[in-house]
Amino acid sequence: MTDDVVVLRYGHRPGRDDRMTTHVGLTARALGADRVVLPDNAGQSAETIRDITDRFGGPFAVELRDDQRAYTRNWEGTVVHLTMYGERVQDVETDIRADSVDVDAPLLVVVGGEKVPFDFYEEADYNVGVTNQPHSEVAGLAVFLDRLFEGAELEREWEDADRVVLPQATGKKVVDPAEAAAEAGERGEDDDGGD
Amino acid sequence: MTDDVVVLRYGHRPGRDDRMTTHVGLTARALGADRVVLPDNAGQSAETIRDITDRFGGPFAVELRDDQRAYTRNWEGTVVHLTMYGERVQDVETDIRADSVDVDAPLLVVVGGEKVPFDFYEEADYNVGVTNQPHSEVAGLAVFLDRLFEGAELEREWEDADRVVLPQATGKKVVDPAEAAAEAGERGEDDDGGD
Repeated sequence: MTDDVVVLRYGHRPGRDDRMTTHVGLTARALGADRVVLPDNAGQSAETIRDITDRFGGPFAVELRDDQRAYTRNWEGTVVHLTMYGERVQDVETDIRADSVDVDAPLLVVVGGEKVPFDFYEEADYNVGVTNQPHSEVAGLAVFLDRLFEGAELEREWEDADRVVLPQATGKKVVDPAEAAAEAGERGEDDDGGD
Repeated sequence: MTDDVVVLRYGHRPGRDDRMTTHVGLTARALGADRVVLPDNAGQSAETIRDITDRFGGPFAVELRDDQRAYTRNWEGTVVHLTMYGERVQDVETDIRADSVDVDAPLLVVVGGEKVPFDFYEEADYNVGVTNQPHSEVAGLAVFLDRLFEGAELEREWEDADRVVLPQATGKKVVDPAEAAAEAGERGEDDDGGD
């Protein structure tokens, strides 16, 4: 994966927002973004996300910055700001895809926490609402990414994982990557056709 | 909407989990579920979700219960348990839809918080992973519901709202329901063809 889709979290109150910011980062990773940019006071969330990446694989980058506004203003590519006040995701997702992932051009997805300054509304190429209802920035990000990638993110393979969860109808199965590869081979999922 | 799709939250630590539980409930509401069942110690989250429903519309019900296990065991309909250890959502969503929304049969979606007892894995008709990666129960619920309803939930109309957010390319526009109806009429969205 190239560093094409970046999620930027605006706003973080240490302690109070740790879990939400961590969930924003983990959702970005799990659903196909290449990198998350967090406020520089969100070091604890950054550590958790890096730890998950070390164990479950990457590539996925976590960056701490204190210049969220300038970073967004200077972004060379499309900027999407997720907000319940924005245009309906179902109306704009095709245009956003055509501007970004369809042509391998960079996309910045801004996810607000607390009050988002009006700058972000103005700097965004698209203000996008996943419904125009109040719910959760994590939920909005998740639905946005799944629609952006049209589900392809669910097929992603992870590199340098210590462990792999194998999907089970009931129960939990966690193996090391070599075992996972062997099971995939037995199911005929090898590309080289060998056995 | 009938009371067909119910989201059940298992586990809640007052204080620490308030925001996550609130986000589970608000996501359930915004993305097409009919009701959320919360643990009985999650009264503060219930209050927030009811307040949002009063202001932004319904119908959507919030229930507090202390019998999550029995409730799940006695559910007359399909039970889906969202877990990173489960089968891949992209592999089972068609079957789940065929068992539930396609035939107007009830569906219970169990969303875990802390350690989920093995009962839930066994009682579930489907254990489902929105990726087999650790991320967020809110993100998993959001993607699951959007896929279950195939995006139709985004077109939902809300009853008895005090206010309506109108989608905007830039900025915020919040109106009362009469104004929203008038704007829809001007855009020719009236079903009766009148003006």
